Amino acid sequence: MAIPQTNFNPPFNITRASHLVLGAQDLAASRDFYTEVVGLIVADENANTLWLRGVEERQHHSLTLKKTTGEPQAECIGMHVFEEEDLDKAKSHFDRNGVPAKFIEVPHQGRTLRYTDVMGTPVELVATMKSQPRNHVAVNHHKGARALRFDHYQVLVPDVIAATKFYTDLGFRISDYLVVEGTDITVGIFLHKKDNPWDLVFLHRQGPQFHHVGYVVESMFDLIRGLDCAGNVGFAECIEHGPGRHGHGHAYYCYIRDPDGHRTELLLPAIQITDRYDEPVMCPLEANTVGNRWGFPPPKSWFEEAAHFTGAKIVHPPHEGDPLTLEKYLATKSWRRGPSTLRKSA
Amino acid sequence: MAIPQTNFNPPFNITRASHLVLGAQDLAASRDFYTEVVGLIVADENANTLWLRGVEERQHHSLTLKKTTGEPQAECIGMHVFEEEDLDKAKSHFDRNGVPAKFIEVPHQGRTLRYTDVMGTPVELVATMKSQPRNHVAVNHHKGARALRFDHYQVLVPDVIAATKFYTDLGFRISDYLVVEGTDITVGIFLHKKDNPWDLVFLHRQGPQFHHVGYVVESMFDLIRGLDCAGNVGFAECIEHGPGRHGHGHAYYCYIRDPDGHRTELLLPAIQITDRYDEPVMCPLEANTVGNRWGFPPPKSWFEEAAHFTGAKIVHPPHEGDPLTLEKYLATKSWRRGPSTLRKSA
Amino acid sequence: MAIPQTNFNPPFNITRASHLVLGAQDLAASRDFYTEVVGLIVADENANTLWLRGVEERQHHSLTLKKTTGEPQAECIGMHVFEEEDLDKAKSHFDRNGVPAKFIEVPHQGRTLRYTDVMGTPVELVATMKSQPRNHVAVNHHKGARALRFDHYQVLVPDVIAATKFYTDLGFRISDYLVVEGTDITVGIFLHKKDNPWDLVFLHRQGPQFHHVGYVVESMFDLIRGLDCAGNVGFAECIEHGPGRHGHGHAYYCYIRDPDGHRTELLLPAIQITDRYDEPVMCPLEANTVGNRWGFPPPKSWFEEAAHFTGAKIVHPPHEGDPLTLEKYLATKSWRRGPSTLRKSA
Amino acid sequence: MAIPQTNFNPPFNITRASHLVLGAQDLAASRDFYTEVVGLIVADENANTLWLRGVEERQHHSLTLKKTTGEPQAECIGMHVFEEEDLDKAKSHFDRNGVPAKFIEVPHQGRTLRYTDVMGTPVELVATMKSQPRNHVAVNHHKGARALRFDHYQVLVPDVIAATKFYTDLGFRISDYLVVEGTDITVGIFLHKKDNPWDLVFLHRQGPQFHHVGYVVESMFDLIRGLDCAGNVGFAECIEHGPGRHGHGHAYYCYIRDPDGHRTELLLPAIQITDRYDEPVMCPLEANTVGNRWGFPPPKSWFEEAAHFTGAKIVHPPHEGDPLTLEKYLATKSWRRGPSTLRKSA
Repeated sequence: MAIPQTNFNPPFNITRASHLVLGAQDLAASRDFYTEVVGLIVADENANTLWLRGVEERQHHSLTLKKTTGEPQAECIGMHVFEEEDLDKAKSHFDRNGVPAKFIEVPHQGRTLRYTDVMGTPVELVATMKSQPRNHVAVNHHKGARALRFDHYQVLVPDVIAATKFYTDLGFRISDYLVVEGTDITVGIFLHKKDNPWDLVFLHRQGPQFHHVGYVVESMFDLIRGLDCAGNVGFAECIEHGPGRHGHGHAYYCYIRDPDGHRTELLLPAIQITDRYDEPVMCPLEANTVGNRWGFPPPKSWFEEAAHFTGAKIVHPPHEGDPLTLEKYLATKSWRRGPSTLRKSA
Repeated sequence: MAIPQTNFNPPFNITRASHLVLGAQDLAASRDFYTEVVGLIVADENANTLWLRGVEERQHHSLTLKKTTGEPQAECIGMHVFEEEDLDKAKSHFDRNGVPAKFIEVPHQGRTLRYTDVMGTPVELVATMKSQPRNHVAVNHHKGARALRFDHYQVLVPDVIAATKFYTDLGFRISDYLVVEGTDITVGIFLHKKDNPWDLVFLHRQGPQFHHVGYVVESMFDLIRGLDCAGNVGFAECIEHGPGRHGHGHAYYCYIRDPDGHRTELLLPAIQITDRYDEPVMCPLEANTVGNRWGFPPPKSWFEEAAHFTGAKIVHPPHEGDPLTLEKYLATKSWRRGPSTLRKSA
Repeated sequence: MAIPQTNFNPPFNITRASHLVLGAQDLAASRDFYTEVVGLIVADENANTLWLRGVEERQHHSLTLKKTTGEPQAECIGMHVFEEEDLDKAKSHFDRNGVPAKFIEVPHQGRTLRYTDVMGTPVELVATMKSQPRNHVAVNHHKGARALRFDHYQVLVPDVIAATKFYTDLGFRISDYLVVEGTDITVGIFLHKKDNPWDLVFLHRQGPQFHHVGYVVESMFDLIRGLDCAGNVGFAECIEHGPGRHGHGHAYYCYIRDPDGHRTELLLPAIQITDRYDEPVMCPLEANTVGNRWGFPPPKSWFEEAAHFTGAKIVHPPHEGDPLTLEKYLATKSWRRGPSTLRKSA
Repeated sequence: MAIPQTNFNPPFNITRASHLVLGAQDLAASRDFYTEVVGLIVADENANTLWLRGVEERQHHSLTLKKTTGEPQAECIGMHVFEEEDLDKAKSHFDRNGVPAKFIEVPHQGRTLRYTDVMGTPVELVATMKSQPRNHVAVNHHKGARALRFDHYQVLVPDVIAATKFYTDLGFRISDYLVVEGTDITVGIFLHKKDNPWDLVFLHRQGPQFHHVGYVVESMFDLIRGLDCAGNVGFAECIEHGPGRHGHGHAYYCYIRDPDGHRTELLLPAIQITDRYDEPVMCPLEANTVGNRWGFPPPKSWFEEAAHFTGAKIVHPPHEGDPLTLEKYLATKSWRRGPSTLRKSA
């Protein structure tokens, strides 16, 4: 099935993925994780809420954690629009198209429009937040991986084509997409508005579910410093997958899990995509192969564990995938290699 | 059981672990692996033998690969003594103590004394090799991980105390040793002569068997470049474990397997140990815990696969260990964390 | 004097600074410099022209070198517009406003509109170039600093406000600007269209002159590898300034000079700027202070040497500046320090 | 004139350069510099003395700063011997040879023998210091460049051959030496006992004077973090030279000056030297050339400024050198290059 086409004259101007609201059972534990390991800055906090941002960010917060006694869920994902009037255009557009949308009050944010997208994912749009000085040169105050800025989130959905069409209609472009080799079944689509390949990623699975948030770190050394700090403050086992290098997109990454199991990807700065002639790249997904450029596939937990979105009903896709997990890979792996591709191609 | 004491007036002067001879079924495949991934330089080669060294090394070779049609084994490990007369002192010492030892001819090496140690491991001693210019600044000619120099080897033995005593009597010092927590059972001992913690490592398992050779790389950047190159030349799946950081010793590392399954550790420069008051450090090994500072334990293959030494008889220890493999770890792992140790200790 | 305001509804859509055409007396020498030190890929070449691009770029070329027997000049700077019709809109806009502009034929480029801006700088606009596969993962083929992509150029002009107004009218935003402390004299303005702080930088000096082109490298290690390679191929003295860290913008950088004296800045990935509420930042320029966060000011050559643009008449500003050069700094520097600011502020 | 030969059976066993005592006018300022920029740990302190060590060191201190109201001098350099009896052997040796030597009491140190070497430099020998746990994995507590360990010191002397002979007689080996090209005049000698090229460096100039102390940092990333921290706490101008890469020895380095002007070299881990057949390398010093592999020569201050040793009389050499300073280099430099050596050699 063909991937949707981008509408380059969208009804309003979303500029980027920008923030996220997650539930947390123990705010003190989460605070330690995000400040000591990820290296986020506490923007504000009270007994029930913790607001965090990356060291480079001027926006007041990019991650909001809300105290919960139940299952820790994702309350919503959030995006920036370019200016105030885009919020009104968005409201009109959603009203015209039967998309539930209403303005709500959110602390430290300007006018905020909350809508529910075609998959049932709750989303927030804002044009402004309280502006803060960037803090990225205050190296002597930085902790952990010194995460610079919010980059993207990945959402599991039972129909990646339908989910994608909702956003290409709003002007999102596709950088890469994953197709099961020998078929026309698309199982992953990477969408962006800003000048790198990712703002919003859809993966084929029951959903909508929140899979992970990506924060950009400055270098491999910062990523590793984050892991060292994890080890030093009792989060040694937070690492789920990596360090590694992605097969498509090619970013260096590591996936870590917070005290509630929410997943963060630390990734290095990505390539730049701006030109219209920079067309979507199709990445074939061979059965039983590792998607990474080196190292291991992710463990089963990476494929199967994700947070429900508050109020969203989980829908199962007609066909569940059968990904090559680390567990399966290890069970069948042989360490006796053949010759290198240098010889094969010679 | 107490660890052996170092004899600081040894009968002759071994200066460091320095080289290794391994069997290989396909020299062309091995050549690609060690030059394109590890980044070694080809010192010499003919139809049946390949001599390699690190980019910093002045010694002619630190790794010799010999063509074999059978099971790829380890022919011997090798060490440097300080000067020629140390070889004669060594021969006398071994003769006096009933250690089989004889002088042999080895291409590109000075006088070479081959002996069999108390565990049955074949070992070579040399005082000189053909001297070469260092090549570590020729960055534009370097490949892969640009491995700088031979660092150490790890040998599996059924009795780590007896194996260690053989070498502490020859002047080796112990940097760290692993003791099963709550017992006096020592299951790993790290020995060194040069100014860092490792020349020779013994691990408790059936043996003698060759487990891995360690090469020092300059930085994490070089280690990762090696993995990128592995991916690019068809050795993507050579990575067995890592990148990670050791729990004891604390070196950053990655384990990779060559086309015959021989294991190489790429590791970053280690700490310096020179002072006599720098006493051996005991590292308790808790049951079912991960020995690393962050990330995963090694897979089962790391614990169980190793090369036989040519001509050596495998002896089983009275008790085999039951290490926490990656496979077991994944099967029981929960991603819901408690608070950080910052909170626990507060 | 107030800095110009951005026109957020520009007559056509420029997306980014994208390329450059420079003169070179010895194409072979330049080829060595840009491939072995900067790490660019040769896109195409003939006896009189060399086309180069960064390892990440899909555009055919970002740097064109043309054989010259005279003084090596800059032929033009180049920008991408979003789509073909933007070129027609640009032509109409320029015609309406008396800006000289005409379509020209350029190898490997789509339709190309050449215009002369208010300062006399020749500029090219293109919507398309021949598209190439990205090459950034082919690490084993990369050389030197492995420059990823074209980032920006700096142009010296006698009137930074007038130069800036021309481009803010076309939709460029200002990230930072330099004001002589205690005055309202603006001496440097940093403009951008893409999501980082720089596409086009104007510095107060006689002009228009081409000062430097900036290429993004992946990490500090790539930058340093470029310098190591420079040393190894006979360009050891190409370094003019750095490695250092900028005071404004905060990028890590190094300035190097090609065989004709043309200046390249190698810089690490910069911060992200997308939000409308991310307002221009005023950076006061104190007399006789170093603009860097650490290290030395640039030498006199950095301030005074630049290439003429072909056909452009040099205009002198009413007041030349008197920057703190490395030469002056060294002549007056004392190495006896006072206390740290930690103490001063305590 | 030939360089001295190493006595491989020295009268006692020095193992390495290990510590240093410097005067400081403002201990609080120095404390900030060494903890926030260099990243040393405070081992102990009182109103008049500050003891510091690197994060990896088990020895109690490697740098002692003593409050002074006069000119900040160097009180002595210090070395470790292998065991207590080496101190007695040293005393006898010095007594036999007319070298002034006496045992003194030094806080936090075992028995300490203070002697004055042939150039008049005061030197301390110790076998033990209070032993401390290594701290190099406590990354979350590290500051600045996270200096790992003391490496070497450089001493200016009017007769490098005589100074060297004193130490080769004590078992020091020569790694490299600098000879004025076309002559047999040796102007610099690099000596070591431990397994890397440096413990003690002599440079031809009036002396004895203390030129710099070298601390090893883990990676270029740490070196640069130190410089960033310098900028953040008011020591932006502490950098005297670098980052750069040495021409001989090839270490990456940066020279910084403390609040009293004392010079520290931050350097990356060096090559390993252990083998007897690893002979001294002669490095010819061409007139008016830069000794570095890339970048600039050091400024005049680096060549001319150094601290007097307490009580030592300065002796001038018969001929002062005329080194190529940064100032001279900049005055004559041309940025128009010829072809690369690739072409020259082709």
